[in-house]
Amino acid sequence: MPLDLISKLAEENDTKLCLLVLDGLGGLPRGEDALTELETARTPNLDELASESEVGFLIPVMHGVTPGSGPGHLGLFGYDPLKYEIPRGALEAAGAGFHQGEKDVATRANFCTVDKTGKVMDRRAGRIATEKSAPLCEKLEKAIRIEGVEVFVRPVKEHRAVVVFRGEGLGDRVRDTDPQETGVRPLEPEVTEDEPESKRTAEIARSFLSQAREVLAEEKSANMLLLRGFSVKPKLPQMSEVYKLKCAAVAQYPMYRGIAKLLGMELLEAGETFEDEFRAVAEARDEYDYFFVHIKPTDSAGEDGDFDRKVAKIEEADKALPELLEVGLDVLAVTGDHSTPAVYKAHSWHPVPALLHSEYSRQDKVTEFAERTCRRGSLGMIESKYLMYLMLANGKRLAKYGA
Amino acid sequence: MPLDLISKLAEENDTKLCLLVLDGLGGLPRGEDALTELETARTPNLDELASESEVGFLIPVMHGVTPGSGPGHLGLFGYDPLKYEIPRGALEAAGAGFHQGEKDVATRANFCTVDKTGKVMDRRAGRIATEKSAPLCEKLEKAIRIEGVEVFVRPVKEHRAVVVFRGEGLGDRVRDTDPQETGVRPLEPEVTEDEPESKRTAEIARSFLSQAREVLAEEKSANMLLLRGFSVKPKLPQMSEVYKLKCAAVAQYPMYRGIAKLLGMELLEAGETFEDEFRAVAEARDEYDYFFVHIKPTDSAGEDGDFDRKVAKIEEADKALPELLEVGLDVLAVTGDHSTPAVYKAHSWHPVPALLHSEYSRQDKVTEFAERTCRRGSLGMIESKYLMYLMLANGKRLAKYGA
Repeated sequence: MPLDLISKLAEENDTKLCLLVLDGLGGLPRGEDALTELETARTPNLDELASESEVGFLIPVMHGVTPGSGPGHLGLFGYDPLKYEIPRGALEAAGAGFHQGEKDVATRANFCTVDKTGKVMDRRAGRIATEKSAPLCEKLEKAIRIEGVEVFVRPVKEHRAVVVFRGEGLGDRVRDTDPQETGVRPLEPEVTEDEPESKRTAEIARSFLSQAREVLAEEKSANMLLLRGFSVKPKLPQMSEVYKLKCAAVAQYPMYRGIAKLLGMELLEAGETFEDEFRAVAEARDEYDYFFVHIKPTDSAGEDGDFDRKVAKIEEADKALPELLEVGLDVLAVTGDHSTPAVYKAHSWHPVPALLHSEYSRQDKVTEFAERTCRRGSLGMIESKYLMYLMLANGKRLAKYGA
Repeated sequence: MPLDLISKLAEENDTKLCLLVLDGLGGLPRGEDALTELETARTPNLDELASESEVGFLIPVMHGVTPGSGPGHLGLFGYDPLKYEIPRGALEAAGAGFHQGEKDVATRANFCTVDKTGKVMDRRAGRIATEKSAPLCEKLEKAIRIEGVEVFVRPVKEHRAVVVFRGEGLGDRVRDTDPQETGVRPLEPEVTEDEPESKRTAEIARSFLSQAREVLAEEKSANMLLLRGFSVKPKLPQMSEVYKLKCAAVAQYPMYRGIAKLLGMELLEAGETFEDEFRAVAEARDEYDYFFVHIKPTDSAGEDGDFDRKVAKIEEADKALPELLEVGLDVLAVTGDHSTPAVYKAHSWHPVPALLHSEYSRQDKVTEFAERTCRRGSLGMIESKYLMYLMLANGKRLAKYGA
């Protein structure tokens, strides 16, 4: 509903918008001085930007709800994550750098261990190393033949892989074969809805699994696959249409490139450093209206519980920031897709610090960009999706509502 | 919808959560220094707790809407009070300490005065004292006989009572007999929906009322009863199922014990003092996951317009608080079900100060727990129901949403 309204109000112009996502930005206090990662980090550039910006907090999904990367980013792009969804198979394909097409059904695959009778002994094949699972994926992709269907098997990490069936008229109403417990046989791929397209996919999956078992027969641990989250390419509203924006994504990690692609963004070469990413925006400035720039290591450090590394990564991003500030953007927002507090060692539900800067933003005159200042900011505490609408408004890209 | 999502994400673990409700906590400024009750009260323990907590405001129902005790508490337990409801009869039964069963239809009864022709002269029987109405209830309960039905008549306060019919297959689609005006006869109990179960209840009510009139014939003022809010036991989602929590309630007043019971909480012995209540939590700590602790006198003082007594009751709760802080809780929230400002002498719509404390709460470093500090807190201003979800999140009891 909010998205429908925004879509009706959206108009084109030549303003340049940029969303800089420091993945997992929000933190929690550590130790005696009780400062968060962002409060600890020395960030002169972000602080100066914040002083001329509106600051506040974003709620990715709902108070108390911890988002995965899919919902976290959908929110930042203005899509209500309780309404729109990237199914698991499609998200895993994105994460594996596999760009799912219209004829593709993607599933998340786990290498597992089965005994002689076919019962699952270990649902993750002892968390087999990626160096071992990757060659198995290649072997499977080469060996398996199903008539009228192209099969892709791509490694993700450790025991995780993506299996994609490409063919005409394939459905995705097929249940998981992962029994979610050990000591029982994998489930057969059965349709969850009685339709010919999904029946065909179920048949294909059966053929795939029986061949896979033969291919993997000699393996000690990774001797079978479990499939989960069958999904056709999700039909998500495309940002170019909804917002009348030509969008580009700069992200070094496949998952985020994949999500961006699903929403219709074009992918730019992201290089290897934060400077590289910002330079990519500078170079493509005239060709696009909206830039999504994604920085991953802040989240990884948080997940690892490495407070100091997260601080260092925030500082590194701050140091590179002038590159982005010199691009000549009309609207710049800096935030995260969710919090990943190092003391929590995982994604969390905590609201995420955010700043919004444009010629027309209010100026909170805060002295730093940090949780403790965002509490008093004029952005308030809003659902992530509203940031996108505010970015459009600040770019003068939303018409007046009503006379 | 939010509750459905939370229910799907809820998982069990061994964290201990506690909600301390100071009924009617929120206040309004008085006099020249313009301090509220909470701002006036000396509360060193709450202040210290607040300094290490997230603070903010809860909106019980909606901006501008003053809640009764039912909606106020439903919100705190995570149930949207605009979606879930405790019907009047059921709430009054709860308030009378009567635990409504599956076969019970409860109604709120008012003693009233009728003239010789049966017309209502006074809908409240001159607000007859409880000492007079209680024996009349006993007399009615003893005297009235209806075949196949057990009848309970229990006093509440002054002219108010609860009448419960217990029998097989009774409906509650029966209109009130209270005409809401004087000079007319009470309405007959008629069904509002044409179904046999409710027809039977209407018949029973007619028989009850005609017998009641005879039993009360000699009374001067309280010579008749008006019935309102026929209700079977409301089917509310049970907290144990929705949240996967084993819940206990510590409340000295029947109304709150009743509401807790309707939501599936078990009732603990609450004693007589605030210390008694907190001790009850300490003693039952290992047997439950969630404790609802209810303190009533703050609200009563507010209702009476007694600012100083409300301040004193807040201070008394603060003094007892260490008992609760020593229990070893993982998550502790302190707030009210609504505001009852002494200068307003009634429940009000004002947002209620709240604090949330856990290992994973942000630390607002406020110097006191008070309206003036809650305004700057990182909890923000949220609907009451979200506090429950945040408590679960802080107890690590909610799975991640989406991949």
